[in-house]
Amino acid sequence: MAFLFNSDAARGTIFRQAFARELPDLEFHHSGECVDPEKVRYLLTWNVPNDVARFRNLEVLFSIGAGVDQFKPETIPERVKLVRMVEDGIIRMMQEYVVLGVLTLHREMLAYREQQGRGLWQALASVQSTDRRVGFLGLGMLAQAAIDRLKPFRFPLAAWSRSKRTVEGITCFHGDDQLGSFLKGTDILVCLLPLTKETSGILNARLFSLLPTGARLLHVGRGPQLDQGALIESLDSGHLAAAMLDVTDPEPLPESHPLWSHPKVIITPHIASVTQPHTAAQSVIENIRRHRAGQNPIGLVDRTRGY
Amino acid sequence: MAFLFNSDAARGTIFRQAFARELPDLEFHHSGECVDPEKVRYLLTWNVPNDVARFRNLEVLFSIGAGVDQFKPETIPERVKLVRMVEDGIIRMMQEYVVLGVLTLHREMLAYREQQGRGLWQALASVQSTDRRVGFLGLGMLAQAAIDRLKPFRFPLAAWSRSKRTVEGITCFHGDDQLGSFLKGTDILVCLLPLTKETSGILNARLFSLLPTGARLLHVGRGPQLDQGALIESLDSGHLAAAMLDVTDPEPLPESHPLWSHPKVIITPHIASVTQPHTAAQSVIENIRRHRAGQNPIGLVDRTRGY
Repeated sequence: MAFLFNSDAARGTIFRQAFARELPDLEFHHSGECVDPEKVRYLLTWNVPNDVARFRNLEVLFSIGAGVDQFKPETIPERVKLVRMVEDGIIRMMQEYVVLGVLTLHREMLAYREQQGRGLWQALASVQSTDRRVGFLGLGMLAQAAIDRLKPFRFPLAAWSRSKRTVEGITCFHGDDQLGSFLKGTDILVCLLPLTKETSGILNARLFSLLPTGARLLHVGRGPQLDQGALIESLDSGHLAAAMLDVTDPEPLPESHPLWSHPKVIITPHIASVTQPHTAAQSVIENIRRHRAGQNPIGLVDRTRGY
Repeated sequence: MAFLFNSDAARGTIFRQAFARELPDLEFHHSGECVDPEKVRYLLTWNVPNDVARFRNLEVLFSIGAGVDQFKPETIPERVKLVRMVEDGIIRMMQEYVVLGVLTLHREMLAYREQQGRGLWQALASVQSTDRRVGFLGLGMLAQAAIDRLKPFRFPLAAWSRSKRTVEGITCFHGDDQLGSFLKGTDILVCLLPLTKETSGILNARLFSLLPTGARLLHVGRGPQLDQGALIESLDSGHLAAAMLDVTDPEPLPESHPLWSHPKVIITPHIASVTQPHTAAQSVIENIRRHRAGQNPIGLVDRTRGY
C-alpha cells in the first residue's frame, strides 16, 4: 500500500518525514521514484497526471491546493474520493490576505499610491469602518475564517452563498434571487467562491452595475470568475473605485496586459494563500486515518457541486 | 464660564450640538466668535494661539490630536492642565492602520508593487506569521490597542517602553539598556512613541544597525523621530527591506523629496489616525465632568515626561 506525492521536492521531503513518523506502514514515494502502480492507494497532486488510470487501486485523490477546479472529475473513476486541501497554513494566509486587502481598499491605499507617484501630500476623506459594508461572495471555510479576523474592525459584514447559510454576526443572503439585494449593500466585495460552471464569469458587467457607485473588489477566488474587460470598463467609468486581484485569467498574466498598469488595480501573483507543507502533511495524514476508519475525509468534494 | 473651540467649522458644529445637549450650562464658542476671554475655562485646539495669555482663567487645554508635542508647555502657566485626545475614533483608525501596515510589510506588498510596475508575475518566498517578529517602540494606549488587533494573526509580539511595563502575551523590554536586545529580535518595527526630547531622532543609523538584516519599519509616531537620510541609506544598502511612513519631517513632505520615489517606501500623508468629532466631543465632555468633580482628566499630560 503506497502514498504517491506528486509536487515539488522541498515539500516532498517534509511530507516524507511526517509520514515516516506517523504512518510507518504506508510506503511513501515521490513521483520521480519507481513505484508499482497497483500499490498506489493515495495520490497528492495539483494536476491529475494523464496516466492516472494505471493506478487501478487508487482510493483517494488529494489536491495540494484549496481548490479542485483543476481536476477534471469526469476523468476520474467514481470510486475515487476527491479531497480539497484543508489545512491551517492555507487558512491563516487567507485570513491575512483578506484583512490586508479589505484594509487596503478601505483606507484608500491605491489613491495614496497614485499621490505618492506625484509627490502629493494630501489627506483624503476617511470613511469609518462602521460605514463601510464588506460583503463576501462565498461562505465556505476560508470565507468564514477571514470573517472571524475582520469582525473586530466593526465593518458591517454580509455574505452570499449558493444555498442558505447562517453565520452569527453576518447578514446572510443566498441564491440567485437574493444576489441583487446583497450587492446593493456591499461597498467592498470579496470573492472567495470556488470555480464551478455556475461561478465562471460571475464577476461581470451586470454584477458590477448592481454594486453601489464607489464600490471596490477584492478577488481571491479564481481567475475565470472575472470578466477582466468589464472590470476595466467599470473602473474607467468611475463606477467601481478600485480592485485588488490575486487571481487572473490567464496566469501568469501576460506582461503586456492592461491590468498591470491600471492605476486603480493592485495585482499579486496568486500568493494569497499557499499550502504550507508541515501543516498540510498533518492534514493529509489525519485524512488517511479517517478514510481507513471508514469516515469521510475533511474537505471531501461533492462531485455534483464541483467543490 | 465658556468652552472655546479652535478648529475647523465642520467638527465645531458637531461639538456644539453635543455640548448643547450634555453641558447646557457651559457657553460654547467657536474661535471666530466674540467671547469674553475672562470667561474661557476650557480651550480645544491643535496649536496654542499666540495670545493664549489673555485667557487668564483657563483651566484645561485640550489637544485635538493624540499628541501634545505641538504644544510648548513652557509657555503655558503651570495651573493649566494639558490633555491629550483619547477617543475611540483615533484608537480604531490606528488599529486599522497598524494592522494594514504590518500585513503590507509582512506580505511583501512593496516588492509586489514593484513587480506590478514591470508586469512581472512571480511569487516571492513567504514567511509565516509565527516566524515574523513584530516589535513596538512605545507601549501606550494606541500601541496596546493595535497589539490587541494583531494578536490573532500569531506574530510573536514584543514592545519597548521607557519605563517598565507588563502586557500579557507581549515580551516587554524597557530602558536604554534593553533597547538593543529588543531590536535584535524585531523583524517589523512599529514606532508609536510620543515626540519628546528623548525620542527625537531615535530612529537613526545606529538603531537601524541593531535590527536584523531584512527588517522593516512602520512609522506612525512623529516625523522628527526619524533620520530620513539614515533610513534611505539603510534601505539602499539592503540592510532594511522596506518602510511605510505616515509621518515625515517636514509635513507636507516637499514634492522633490527622494522618499517619495523610493521603491522600498510607502508614504501616506499623516492619515493613520484622525480625531473623529462625534466620539471626540463625548470624550472632551466626559473629561470636563471629571475635572469639575475634582478628578484628573483622561489623557492628562505629565509635564516632566512631556506626554
